[in-house]
Amino acid sequence: MEVYLDNSATTKPYEEVIEAVASTMSNYYGNPSSIHKLGMQAEKKLNECREVIAKAINCTRDEIIFTSGGSESNNFLIRGFVKPGGNIITTKIEHPSVLNTFKEMEKEGINVLYLDVDCNGRINLEQLENNIDKDTMLVSIMHVNNEIGYIQDIESIGNLIKKKSSRAKFHVDAVQSYGKLRIDVVKSKIDLLSASAHKIHGPRGAGFAYIRKGLVPKPLIIGGGQERTFRSGTENLPAIVGFSKASEIINKNRDKNFEKVKQLKSHFINEIENMEGVKINSPLEDEFLPYILNVSFIAVRAEVLLHLLEEKGIYVSMGSACSSKDTKDSHVLKAIGLKDVELKGTIRFSFSELNTLEEIDYTIENLEKSLKFLRRVAK
Amino acid sequence: MEVYLDNSATTKPYEEVIEAVASTMSNYYGNPSSIHKLGMQAEKKLNECREVIAKAINCTRDEIIFTSGGSESNNFLIRGFVKPGGNIITTKIEHPSVLNTFKEMEKEGINVLYLDVDCNGRINLEQLENNIDKDTMLVSIMHVNNEIGYIQDIESIGNLIKKKSSRAKFHVDAVQSYGKLRIDVVKSKIDLLSASAHKIHGPRGAGFAYIRKGLVPKPLIIGGGQERTFRSGTENLPAIVGFSKASEIINKNRDKNFEKVKQLKSHFINEIENMEGVKINSPLEDEFLPYILNVSFIAVRAEVLLHLLEEKGIYVSMGSACSSKDTKDSHVLKAIGLKDVELKGTIRFSFSELNTLEEIDYTIENLEKSLKFLRRVAK
Ligand SMILES: Cc1ncc(COP(=O)(O)O)c(C=O)c1O
Ligand SMILES: Cc1ncc(COP(=O)(O)O)c(C=O)c1O
Repeated sequence: MEVYLDNSATTKPYEEVIEAVASTMSNYYGNPSSIHKLGMQAEKKLNECREVIAKAINCTRDEIIFTSGGSESNNFLIRGFVKPGGNIITTKIEHPSVLNTFKEMEKEGINVLYLDVDCNGRINLEQLENNIDKDTMLVSIMHVNNEIGYIQDIESIGNLIKKKSSRAKFHVDAVQSYGKLRIDVVKSKIDLLSASAHKIHGPRGAGFAYIRKGLVPKPLIIGGGQERTFRSGTENLPAIVGFSKASEIINKNRDKNFEKVKQLKSHFINEIENMEGVKINSPLEDEFLPYILNVSFIAVRAEVLLHLLEEKGIYVSMGSACSSKDTKDSHVLKAIGLKDVELKGTIRFSFSELNTLEEIDYTIENLEKSLKFLRRVAK
Repeated sequence: MEVYLDNSATTKPYEEVIEAVASTMSNYYGNPSSIHKLGMQAEKKLNECREVIAKAINCTRDEIIFTSGGSESNNFLIRGFVKPGGNIITTKIEHPSVLNTFKEMEKEGINVLYLDVDCNGRINLEQLENNIDKDTMLVSIMHVNNEIGYIQDIESIGNLIKKKSSRAKFHVDAVQSYGKLRIDVVKSKIDLLSASAHKIHGPRGAGFAYIRKGLVPKPLIIGGGQERTFRSGTENLPAIVGFSKASEIINKNRDKNFEKVKQLKSHFINEIENMEGVKINSPLEDEFLPYILNVSFIAVRAEVLLHLLEEKGIYVSMGSACSSKDTKDSHVLKAIGLKDVELKGTIRFSFSELNTLEEIDYTIENLEKSLKFLRRVAK
């Protein structure tokens, strides 16, 4: 049996997505910037996709800029709106594409405040409120954390920011939530938002940046002036069409998928929570996304456990694998206060609606065997 | 009949490329950064592609960084190696992704010298030589110009730069030459080079940046540390595999393709050069790439001619269409000294080895009819 439980790293594209990509490559090979018929057809298609994405987050077509993925969107939106002299607020548990961008900008003289999180991963709204002032240029807070699945209350955060300052822009990294949770940029008062296609069974190589009307970013990639001059380079139409297709499928089934995955997680947790030396870092509560189950197997070396599961065809990740192989300890697990002995034994199981209960049972069975083996060897 | 003569804007992907992309989406959906088997398989595939590309330009695997395309490669390589205080030398006829990046950097206090070109598009080696000094940080000169197809002598240029300075880096935008001309980064003493997949019947969404061993760029996209930390973001493996496949096919057939396209261009020129009011801006000489035929139809409005041809299923472009729709006059045609009446009537026919003599005859026939019609109407 093959069980893919690394869906937060990347997902298997839907069949319909693969077909859409291939057929766009064959049939829409014109350059959207060309003014002849093939170019116009490609441009029309591009804007249809833009419409699909815009609807999904309750914004307008002109507020969507296509990029090559989540990392580019984060870099673009952050760099695009921060000028020297301004202050920034973010959290300690952001994805490296946000965090490392800020670390770099600190060297350039920008002030960055990294908000603490509690043992779940929640930021302190009071700490946020106390730190927003007229010099705050940007507040960047992720919607769902990619390692532990904690969901920040972006609606309250958005309202808070706008209450305290009319100048501070609110950026949300929604790479792990888009297609899984409802996102309404108007309701949550979001100015800037990032998402990525390959996390929702779409193709790799496409993402989008939502930029609220009226805001003008500095481009990250300059050139021929595509995407209303904000993102140059020949548009990757096949991937964008695939992204749009994946968005349609996943957003249509969002509630159904959510319930299904919640059952998988619930079952998984029920079976393992009473095992010895098991600590669930992403419990079955409303504040945690069901798609992610983060578990510390105390005094176990996660890498060894991962490879034992792999031998049985079960694919999981340790810490976060959507960032590159990294032997450093996870900054997220540290921020929520895990002890070293927990941290080193942490595995992320991440689900998709394509997983089945049978797969989960198979995983639990092999997990138990592997743990028994490891603990015996350790003695 | 449908005749696609806009291959310098973008090309129709080879069937084998479409299949490679689709099959990679199905079979290699793991994240190369994941440490389980699916991740490792994806990473292995990625490095096989890197090897194919590296061989094609005579460099090693570690010198290739994959990007989302030519514009990103140009922005990345330029931004990645220029620090405040240094001087830059480039030409007046670079692609907007180079030129507009430099224009932006001038605002940031960087000194940029834009070399003149003669009526063919050739830079003056003496002007270059006289302007390289110890403060020259980067010399950025394109291999083949995308509007007129002029080929700069990059081997002489590379030698000249290295003779004058051991510090100045040589960057070559090879987006229009890769797969069409032989490129040897060692022989031409190139430090940095950009290319793009969709210009050689590969997929959109992939490009590469060659960086000579030992040189360390500042990344444009920061994050999880992919591509040896130089280009973060989940790797677009399907597009990279498609790029590698297209590279193999086109490089294997490079000489044969070249001869075939040269015949198409030669035939085209023979048929039209004696027509009244026709000025060939890219003659059949060794200094011009056969893949591009740039022609001024004097006193004709290029846009009108383009749409007349389009009605017959013939797709061409005016000025440059790999940059976005633009009503401004071409900076390239101005730099080679075209008069306004020539400039406004300029069409670019760009070929691929997939075009046939029959298609060219059909094009010439309809071109003649259209011109006759336009000149009659103008009277
Ligand atoms: C929360 C979060 N943000 C950003 C990214 C980066 O997205 P991409 O891989 O599309 O560049 C990821 C995953 O890689 C993520 O989980
Ligand atoms: C010479 C040249 N450089 C760079 C580019 C940009 O490449 P891409 O469209 O892949 O971003 C192009 C074409 O668009 C080009 O012709």
